[in-house]
Amino acid sequence: MIRIGIDIGGTGIQIGALDDNYHILNQASIPTCTNIPFEAQVDQMVECIHDVLRPEINPELTMNHVLSIGAGIPGIANAEGTVINCTNLGWSYVPLREAFQKRIQKPFYVDNDANVAALAESIAGISAGTSSSVFITLGTGIGSGIILNGKVWKGFHGIGGELGHMILKLDGKPCSCGNHGCVEQYCSASAIIRMAREGLADHPESCIHAICGGDPGKINAKTVFDALHKEDPWADQIFTEYVSCLAQTIANVTNFLDPEIIILGGGVSKAGSVLLDAVRMEFPKYVLFNDQPLPRVEIASLGAEAGIIGAAMLS
Amino acid sequence: MIRIGIDIGGTGIQIGALDDNYHILNQASIPTCTNIPFEAQVDQMVECIHDVLRPEINPELTMNHVLSIGAGIPGIANAEGTVINCTNLGWSYVPLREAFQKRIQKPFYVDNDANVAALAESIAGISAGTSSSVFITLGTGIGSGIILNGKVWKGFHGIGGELGHMILKLDGKPCSCGNHGCVEQYCSASAIIRMAREGLADHPESCIHAICGGDPGKINAKTVFDALHKEDPWADQIFTEYVSCLAQTIANVTNFLDPEIIILGGGVSKAGSVLLDAVRMEFPKYVLFNDQPLPRVEIASLGAEAGIIGAAMLS
Repeated sequence: MIRIGIDIGGTGIQIGALDDNYHILNQASIPTCTNIPFEAQVDQMVECIHDVLRPEINPELTMNHVLSIGAGIPGIANAEGTVINCTNLGWSYVPLREAFQKRIQKPFYVDNDANVAALAESIAGISAGTSSSVFITLGTGIGSGIILNGKVWKGFHGIGGELGHMILKLDGKPCSCGNHGCVEQYCSASAIIRMAREGLADHPESCIHAICGGDPGKINAKTVFDALHKEDPWADQIFTEYVSCLAQTIANVTNFLDPEIIILGGGVSKAGSVLLDAVRMEFPKYVLFNDQPLPRVEIASLGAEAGIIGAAMLS
Repeated sequence: MIRIGIDIGGTGIQIGALDDNYHILNQASIPTCTNIPFEAQVDQMVECIHDVLRPEINPELTMNHVLSIGAGIPGIANAEGTVINCTNLGWSYVPLREAFQKRIQKPFYVDNDANVAALAESIAGISAGTSSSVFITLGTGIGSGIILNGKVWKGFHGIGGELGHMILKLDGKPCSCGNHGCVEQYCSASAIIRMAREGLADHPESCIHAICGGDPGKINAKTVFDALHKEDPWADQIFTEYVSCLAQTIANVTNFLDPEIIILGGGVSKAGSVLLDAVRMEFPKYVLFNDQPLPRVEIASLGAEAGIIGAAMLS
């Protein structure tokens, strides 16, 4: 049997068919269209599913072999499969399960993309074999997914896992959500970019200045990590500040939930061992019982495929 | 059958026998002695258990009817029943289960007192019938207990549930744990007392000044609530600041874990509806998806008996 996973992103939709060993047998993608009605968006996704089902590649790639279909969205959905909120696609209270099941009579599940990535890692990635994990995506924003006893924990009302909007600094920096001091303002890629942009004029000697040609608009998180690799003192200062905030966030997750493993994904996690080593060194300072065994901190291992794999494994 | 619950506190130890309906059939107490060896402390507790078992009160009050014994401690214990850390009693890595089972051959369990109170409320108190809850004790410090799917979640390594030492304000007030900006510094009874003491000299007009006779050492949390009831403007200012911090902490729990219910216990919770109404009004502002149903916030219902009931129900 196979499972279909749909990874709905802000710019593109990836659809893949997964076998029982969590391997993607075939996949295809379509651009995310926000200027067409919801029903037409669903039609496009269904058409793409049919494109993925090619028995000439593998005899199991037929609709008869499809066990279930799952979708990961950058937003939240309720237990009935209605998407409550998905800003990127312009969706608000759209009946995604109902719309799919009108077209394909298979079990259909939908969940937040960070939950989906957390599930994928816990089944087929770095946290496979663990019973509890927290997955944190360090991207433009911060997403998170919680796995407890092997299952996605999205909260009783379906609104949990929003680590990015936990308050880390009372009366801190204003956040897009309307509050102040959210984790997202200190631990996202955007936070690194903001620090670099704000200090650019004061550090003409820095490699960052050279890499971006003095144009703050050309700075991204990689700019700072590239400068860090060149042992640039100001990049090191930005990095140290960032790691301190991320370490305190990881310690918060540990002090409260204490999962077996905490996984870092998203763009910033591509920094790899320089980030991982620094965070592993720093976070225990902020854990109350830091003389005890602590959660492992790891970088996500599945990369871009996590979205399809996790969506396919929803149940 | 009956279960024995032992509530080990900093000044006294309460021991009770619970029937199947979570009623305490008989109870007794001894002072907490920290100046005697650990084995002697256990001897005193065992003697107190025997004092509680009085069949002349109820025919089930015999050792033969005891199903299990549980203890709640102001500290942490591991799965083997060893108390890792319990500062108040001077315990560090003491084999509590082993010591009890040498004296009484019954299943013995030990857990943190906030976990125990959370369990008690979820079985016989305000959160009975719910599947997920977070219990927060607002006392001299802040404790918390997490119940998920009806069971205490103490974390994979047994160090979770330490909401009081999650960082709420990066680089904030120094905490006894060595870090800065812990929840405990903003949401405990001590935080209310600190605010009142710090501002006392500047508010000679306030009822707080009158109640404590100008002596900062005589201020406690109740002083502030008493002044609040007299519509004292400065007490209102302290209260508003406190509620804002507590609301943001409750919102953090919601954004991350989203339990069915959040329960407030401990000394500050005795303020009752004035606190509850204010917190219920304030916390949704800080929840990301606050157009969705949110966790109920309630005051603990079991009071002092929660320690015995929850300890007895450990398993």
